[in-house]
Amino acid sequence: MYVINYEEREETEVDKPGVEKTTVRWLIGRRSGAKTYAMRVFTMAPGGIIPLHTHTEEHEIFILQGQAKLLSEEEGKIARKNDVVFIPQDMPHGFDNRDSNEEFKFICVIPLLEK
Amino acid sequence: MYVINYEEREETEVDKPGVEKTTVRWLIGRRSGAKTYAMRVFTMAPGGIIPLHTHTEEHEIFILQGQAKLLSEEEGKIARKNDVVFIPQDMPHGFDNRDSNEEFKFICVIPLLEK
Repeated sequence: MYVINYEEREETEVDKPGVEKTTVRWLIGRRSGAKTYAMRVFTMAPGGIIPLHTHTEEHEIFILQGQAKLLSEEEGKIARKNDVVFIPQDMPHGFDNRDSNEEFKFICVIPLLEK
Repeated sequence: MYVINYEEREETEVDKPGVEKTTVRWLIGRRSGAKTYAMRVFTMAPGGIIPLHTHTEEHEIFILQGQAKLLSEEEGKIARKNDVVFIPQDMPHGFDNRDSNEEFKFICVIPLLEK
């Protein structure tokens, strides 16, 4: 068992194709002893984007701060503070914070898949 | 995929032994199509408590508001806004908000175990 302020976790740039001005902190993962799923926090600076992408991990997301466009194949939606976003596996998704002057910050929980 | 403000989810009293002044909202679960883990928000009014208890589900917790005593078999710890708490399976735990004048609110992710 541990208690830690999320800002004490190492913050690293997300190094994926097309991702801009976005960092990740791993809050709970394999190193913590988690076996099934992992909790991370992402922070997108104003001007940041995670472009539309797809993977087999579903996402359970809670928005902590700001607002951003939720990129998807559907109509454009906005995800705001206190919103919950569920993204099933294999569904294209992304976030666009390029029209905002505020940081966009969200918790994202993913399954720890067998590798 | 959906986006919903967490306050739109039904809020129900937690009906477990010894739990007082505590509600739960299920944000993402089996009904949403989640297969592996579920996201809930708990709200403890001032005076609320979830007494020490144990179960096989581990918890991945993020504190959204307030502060409370983290009950455990170790030294007393306080969990505050922006803290992350990891509770491994079978570890006794609870929260005590009886000394506070503020709501204590946290996200809690649990595995969806086979029944």
